[in-house]
Amino acid sequence: MTVHDPRPDIEPLVRASLRAVAPTLVELGMEVGNLVEDTGALVFEGNLAASVANADVVQESVPERLELKQQLWAAIEAAARPDALFASSSSGLPATTIAERMRQPERLIIGHPFNPPHLIPLVELVPGARTDRAVAERAVAFYRAMGKRPQVLRTEIAGFVANRLQSALFRGAVHLVGQGVVTEQELDDVVTSSIGMRWAIAGPFQTFHLGGGSGGLPAFLEHFRTTIEEGWPALGAPSLDEPTFALLSEQAQHFDGTVEQLAARRDQAIVRLMRALGQDPAQANG
Amino acid sequence: MTVHDPRPDIEPLVRASLRAVAPTLVELGMEVGNLVEDTGALVFEGNLAASVANADVVQESVPERLELKQQLWAAIEAAARPDALFASSSSGLPATTIAERMRQPERLIIGHPFNPPHLIPLVELVPGARTDRAVAERAVAFYRAMGKRPQVLRTEIAGFVANRLQSALFRGAVHLVGQGVVTEQELDDVVTSSIGMRWAIAGPFQTFHLGGGSGGLPAFLEHFRTTIEEGWPALGAPSLDEPTFALLSEQAQHFDGTVEQLAARRDQAIVRLMRALGQDPAQANG
Repeated sequence: MTVHDPRPDIEPLVRASLRAVAPTLVELGMEVGNLVEDTGALVFEGNLAASVANADVVQESVPERLELKQQLWAAIEAAARPDALFASSSSGLPATTIAERMRQPERLIIGHPFNPPHLIPLVELVPGARTDRAVAERAVAFYRAMGKRPQVLRTEIAGFVANRLQSALFRGAVHLVGQGVVTEQELDDVVTSSIGMRWAIAGPFQTFHLGGGSGGLPAFLEHFRTTIEEGWPALGAPSLDEPTFALLSEQAQHFDGTVEQLAARRDQAIVRLMRALGQDPAQANG
Repeated sequence: MTVHDPRPDIEPLVRASLRAVAPTLVELGMEVGNLVEDTGALVFEGNLAASVANADVVQESVPERLELKQQLWAAIEAAARPDALFASSSSGLPATTIAERMRQPERLIIGHPFNPPHLIPLVELVPGARTDRAVAERAVAFYRAMGKRPQVLRTEIAGFVANRLQSALFRGAVHLVGQGVVTEQELDDVVTSSIGMRWAIAGPFQTFHLGGGSGGLPAFLEHFRTTIEEGWPALGAPSLDEPTFALLSEQAQHFDGTVEQLAARRDQAIVRLMRALGQDPAQANG
């Protein structure tokens, strides 16, 4: 694997990050020799054209600036093999727009991972308006082979799917904390001990399907549609203005540990959860 | 424990339900002898006053009709011991209103569990405007002793916390399925393989706190607040009108199994998840 980045100190940065996550990957049964030792399997190449010349797959993860991504993809296309798979990690910019300066925009697809990317299985695959169907199929096969769970979206939409849903819940959460119904920590406890636990196992539709008894989702909706629909406008339309920003920042001082400690605990818990649900990469590939 | 219900066939119904969940409870290390065998520990009493006369705790779980709940609580109050703890399972009606016909409205609190209630740890405790603070404290102690994770809300708000957050996400989900971006099953897969898994471990605030690197939530908000806030109005305001109801019902035909099979699989998975995260009742009490 070849890494290209304009930063002169990219190699020690990447190697330190890999060493940091290696123990977690080992726990998941993955081989990390090539990641933590200089075996030659990981190459750093300062020249963009040289870095992509022999690649089977090019994954671009530069900052979310359209101009930058457009320039980069024109340059990658000119230097890469004609059969290389092209994926952008963009979390917001659509492939249609990013590919505007490419000669073959049908080659580009969004391949959007989630934090922490070495653990979370989802990769959102978002074809642009001109992306070739075969590119989506190759991308699915590629990410599956990495032990991931790719999902192809049927239409381009701003924010894609997971971040839109996350943002919808966060909007309701900001309203509740802003109104003083619960603190951030209390709201987090509510989520982890109820809806979060359920959504790790059954998504929102299946959850309501099971809430309808033997009649399933239709019975659930028949019973609750009015309550749900009438409740939507009252969920709140908070702003992230200065007082709200100050309140959310102040309450964030009360998390139980440093960000690094909390992240390490979360990663350990995700590993345990994935193992318990049979979703670790070893089993996903098996 | 005494069960009161106007249905003449309540005893076989309750005993069948208890036998159905008993294997799951056994897996969690709980004693179920008194639930599945007629040891005399579970009593059925058709007379309301007699059923509550000696109770330490009265938990009311009748349908969500205000008139019914108000009448019932006036009757319970007249028959129960003066030191009994009073909790209503209401998922929507506020304790302030339910208690309006009670002589001592300060005794009533909402104790709202989540499906499936024999597994999900959260119990939302929602004091009414006149509920005594000591009642909330007793309720916390009671549900904790049952291995639950009670959370006291600081203000009464329609829908309480978890169902409001769930409804906010569902609103965005209905929009995405209605727009044809993903199917119900695809959206559920997106959630279980990303944000659901994260929210089982870290709630929405801690998740964004960890997304901000060492700067935590303030750094995250500083970077993303405009993107998030500008995206909120575009998350969609779908209706649950007939065409949407028909679409959601039609796609619900494609879940992989009957409701009963899916519910059994979910319950097994919740048990594995709780064990993996050290959240099963045995450990919670330990």
